[in-house]
Amino acid sequence: MTRLPRPHFQQLGLIGCGLIGGSFALALKRAGLVKRVVGYSKSPSTTETAKRLGVIDVAAESALLAVSGSDLVLIAVPVAATEATLRAIRHLAQVQPQTLFMDVGSTKADVAIAVQKVLGAHAAQFVPAHPIAGKELAGVQNAEAQLFQGRQVVLTPLPENEPALVQKAAGVWAAMGCKVLRMTPENHDAAYAAVSHFPHLLAYAYFQSVMRQPSGREFMELAGTGFRDFTRIAGGDPAVWRDIFLANRDEILHQSQRFRSVLDRLEHWMKEGDTSALETLLRQVSEARNKWSPTFFDAEDGEPSSHF
Amino acid sequence: MTRLPRPHFQQLGLIGCGLIGGSFALALKRAGLVKRVVGYSKSPSTTETAKRLGVIDVAAESALLAVSGSDLVLIAVPVAATEATLRAIRHLAQVQPQTLFMDVGSTKADVAIAVQKVLGAHAAQFVPAHPIAGKELAGVQNAEAQLFQGRQVVLTPLPENEPALVQKAAGVWAAMGCKVLRMTPENHDAAYAAVSHFPHLLAYAYFQSVMRQPSGREFMELAGTGFRDFTRIAGGDPAVWRDIFLANRDEILHQSQRFRSVLDRLEHWMKEGDTSALETLLRQVSEARNKWSPTFFDAEDGEPSSHF
Repeated sequence: MTRLPRPHFQQLGLIGCGLIGGSFALALKRAGLVKRVVGYSKSPSTTETAKRLGVIDVAAESALLAVSGSDLVLIAVPVAATEATLRAIRHLAQVQPQTLFMDVGSTKADVAIAVQKVLGAHAAQFVPAHPIAGKELAGVQNAEAQLFQGRQVVLTPLPENEPALVQKAAGVWAAMGCKVLRMTPENHDAAYAAVSHFPHLLAYAYFQSVMRQPSGREFMELAGTGFRDFTRIAGGDPAVWRDIFLANRDEILHQSQRFRSVLDRLEHWMKEGDTSALETLLRQVSEARNKWSPTFFDAEDGEPSSHF
Repeated sequence: MTRLPRPHFQQLGLIGCGLIGGSFALALKRAGLVKRVVGYSKSPSTTETAKRLGVIDVAAESALLAVSGSDLVLIAVPVAATEATLRAIRHLAQVQPQTLFMDVGSTKADVAIAVQKVLGAHAAQFVPAHPIAGKELAGVQNAEAQLFQGRQVVLTPLPENEPALVQKAAGVWAAMGCKVLRMTPENHDAAYAAVSHFPHLLAYAYFQSVMRQPSGREFMELAGTGFRDFTRIAGGDPAVWRDIFLANRDEILHQSQRFRSVLDRLEHWMKEGDTSALETLLRQVSEARNKWSPTFFDAEDGEPSSHF
């Protein structure tokens, strides 16, 4: 564990005032790390709501204007919009070389490519980030200062990033109560395809297959807590998940192949009536699942920490 | 809504002192419906634990002895063990024609067949039941009197059952705070294949496919609340789920076919980069999922009710 710096900023430029962006602004204010938040959203009504709720202090009329004068910029848009956003703000990245840029995208290889392509030499100012936090209810009205408390954030630094800037980025998240991890974009995308993206695809596909069958709606009225928990992630923001499924397609399809081969095997045993093969697998899974628990941690004291 | 009788019993014979059987005994006592509980489990240590915890009052050395003198018998064993259990107690079903028998199995067509085959004319005394309740932690040590409170129970009466006996069975569950539904065994099995059995199969297959891949264990350490909720049902009792997967095989495989065709379609769109088809489906699912909620109800006052 390293003690991380506790950076302070004059102004956060927030591009995308949704659940994650809004929660970041609130958390940053709560931690006392920023004086002013200038926000921009594609939809003016969202920006207005963000202002009314005190998530942002000033509404900007463009992404570029949100960056202007900001020493910290967070891009919190669906991942497919990252490149267009970078193009819109590229000019100021060049004339504000002290500004730290981050994103919050659930895929990271595509972000690295977009940043290098669009920002060129100024890619060094951009530290890609992915906080492992969220909830099913999207939108700035659901933003909360505590969203990142006790959660993990993965940074996938670019080769261009100076170590001191990566430490500064880590310090921002640590001050919000996050445990900061560091990975390559490729490892990040493989890992989250397995434990997040592919199960989301499964949940969407499963819910659709039940909903669209002749008695599906009646069947769902009979469902209990297992169904509720299993399908919770099928309630996620469609625009966010559409982009993730496309941006991390190859890794997700790879997970699907692995999964299908296990499902085939289970169904083969069911058809053959192979009680003992079936039970052996279920027992191994059940024991492993009941031992597993998510890596949350107590960060009440706000002690900055990292596993760099 | 019909007012249901509130039946009283001298003695519950409990065969299978696990989570569900144990919770039934506790709930029956709490509702003041029974004077004494005599319990039997295949494992003597389980029977002992059940006695020590006050779940049962008397330990029986066989299933037959648990039935002896009982005016209510609950068979709470993994579904594949139902037929053997019925054979073991058949003699007393014949000489105690006033005894009401029920089970709690998650599949119902197989139970109907076993009851008719083994009990013959005395099948009339057996009202098959499936309470939609449970939790991942199996075993009598996790039993609780509140487990059925506010949950649904499905009765799948046999043609041989007298209406008054079905009402009596319904009254038992209603007194525990359940909403009582009535279905045919075939409809029951089709519905629960869709909303319970098949998602359990998916969760087991998915967890196994992650756990068994080269970096699976590391990946799982990065997982968050989505993974936690999605895989919760993969922690279920292996013996229970082995039996359900086999007993309701045809309906589960039918659900799998439907599911696979949706998954194929989603993956096709991912490969083609069909953003709008992908988003349309995700949006429909997400909206439907966020509108859905499980049918729990407030039964604090213990008002007996049914939807017969």
